[in-house]
Amino acid sequence: MRPIVFHWPGDELFADRLVRALHAERAGLELHRFPDGESLVRLDTDVAGRPVVLICSLARPDDKTLPLLFAADAARDLGATKVLLAAPYLAYLRQDRRFHAGEAVTSRTYAGLLSSAFDALVTVDPHLHRYHALDEIYRIPTRVVHAAPLIARWIAAQIERPLLIGPDTESEQWVAEVARGAGAPYTVLQKIRRGDRDVEVSLPDVSAWAWVDRQPVLVDDIVSSARTMVQAVGSVRRVGLRPPVCVGVHALFAPSAYEDLLASGAHRVVTCDTVPHESNQIGVVQPMARAIGELIEGTAT
Amino acid sequence: MRPIVFHWPGDELFADRLVRALHAERAGLELHRFPDGESLVRLDTDVAGRPVVLICSLARPDDKTLPLLFAADAARDLGATKVLLAAPYLAYLRQDRRFHAGEAVTSRTYAGLLSSAFDALVTVDPHLHRYHALDEIYRIPTRVVHAAPLIARWIAAQIERPLLIGPDTESEQWVAEVARGAGAPYTVLQKIRRGDRDVEVSLPDVSAWAWVDRQPVLVDDIVSSARTMVQAVGSVRRVGLRPPVCVGVHALFAPSAYEDLLASGAHRVVTCDTVPHESNQIGVVQPMARAIGELIEGTAT
Repeated sequence: MRPIVFHWPGDELFADRLVRALHAERAGLELHRFPDGESLVRLDTDVAGRPVVLICSLARPDDKTLPLLFAADAARDLGATKVLLAAPYLAYLRQDRRFHAGEAVTSRTYAGLLSSAFDALVTVDPHLHRYHALDEIYRIPTRVVHAAPLIARWIAAQIERPLLIGPDTESEQWVAEVARGAGAPYTVLQKIRRGDRDVEVSLPDVSAWAWVDRQPVLVDDIVSSARTMVQAVGSVRRVGLRPPVCVGVHALFAPSAYEDLLASGAHRVVTCDTVPHESNQIGVVQPMARAIGELIEGTAT
Repeated sequence: MRPIVFHWPGDELFADRLVRALHAERAGLELHRFPDGESLVRLDTDVAGRPVVLICSLARPDDKTLPLLFAADAARDLGATKVLLAAPYLAYLRQDRRFHAGEAVTSRTYAGLLSSAFDALVTVDPHLHRYHALDEIYRIPTRVVHAAPLIARWIAAQIERPLLIGPDTESEQWVAEVARGAGAPYTVLQKIRRGDRDVEVSLPDVSAWAWVDRQPVLVDDIVSSARTMVQAVGSVRRVGLRPPVCVGVHALFAPSAYEDLLASGAHRVVTCDTVPHESNQIGVVQPMARAIGELIEGTAT
């Protein structure tokens, strides 16, 4: 049975691509806000007996989550055989333990909410630190699409003689994978985080002269405040390397962050299409569609 | 064991009163928003082995609900013996069936979310239509405080020779109860709703001359767009009655609604303190505190 795909406002382009890749039927998710601030959610197509895919990139999740849960519940209630969440960006993974007494471990609560509402989840490069896998907190089948090979392929095709640079030592393994895929050398910066918006980075003591004819490519998973990237651009320029290309997986971009990054001396800024943004250049839809197809086949008989 | 009371930003005055009425300990609920739009929630006091009351008036619920669920989960996780929600205004009761094909029945989903996160719930005059009681959708013990006797007492004490007027025939039973408590006559208006913001009302064919020396008191449960109240004020004035006092239970007040109501010729506007607003005059804390006390005694041993 062909799946029916609904999408969140803003995720139109992603939905177009996913519907084509899945040979799915596209349908409309109607969202209305009453004068008292409550949401009304409506699926404009009969879902009875069909698998449903709900696309919602979960950047800025607090507003979206409640109506998303309503939509999932409605789909199930209306007889969908399976309700899948396609969240190219997944929220609430950062708070994976109590950093200070009394804090909510929001990653667990959030995972519990989505696990209750959906039958399965597909996402791209979830921001896991202490968790090793989503199934430590998600009770439903999950599939993770890795952006590294997609980014590597994009770099190999678009950038001549690239030098990959990671934002911090934590990212080293990931940057190494991208570099390997792109057939390029890499290094990583040292990062010191002083608060939400206060981050410093510096280029390690490298043989900059050996890389002077290379095109630096800064890669990071999430670009939010962009402070890390902006400082990284500065570090790269200070040692005499060329204006770097900045590549991020998830284009969260807090207000003014994108403009700051462009103004910092970056040659160009490129992201995956997991969070809708004008910098989106690297598509994640094909592997997401494969994962969704597997999940639908998985238990639908 | 003395309960610990946390409250939502904006619910400070209500919290002051409830803490006094319960002889409870007051503690701080810290809410922080990260640059990427996610929330951090922290309870600033050790709740282990203690009952916890979370105060949150659920007007404009979409922003509040996710952090509220985080806070409840944190309290339980940190060893609270019981986690109670004191929501003087409860949200998502309006959508109690599918009015159009494909709609989410949000009242059920919302009740499910709160029922999973809290051990019990206390509210004031929930806006029930097709449901007869909260326990049709809430799986946890609930207590409902009735505003009618509190409003009746306020009217009896503050208004000379009142004439109570209800906004529509649905409200007749409730208005009759308030009128009985206040020892006053009553009537109800005819109401025609054409959309979210389009409502008409008219005074029935009454012997206005018999009431000309009475002070009209318009009473309604929720004042949101205030269109109903504004039109009711007009109807009352047109038949030659005095500028009415407007009494609402829940002061939702969409933008400009309060100003519109004051400008419509109302003598004054008074509400219960279930949604923080400058019109709050009628306190609901005492009966809420009693209900909370019963719920805490109920299973804590």
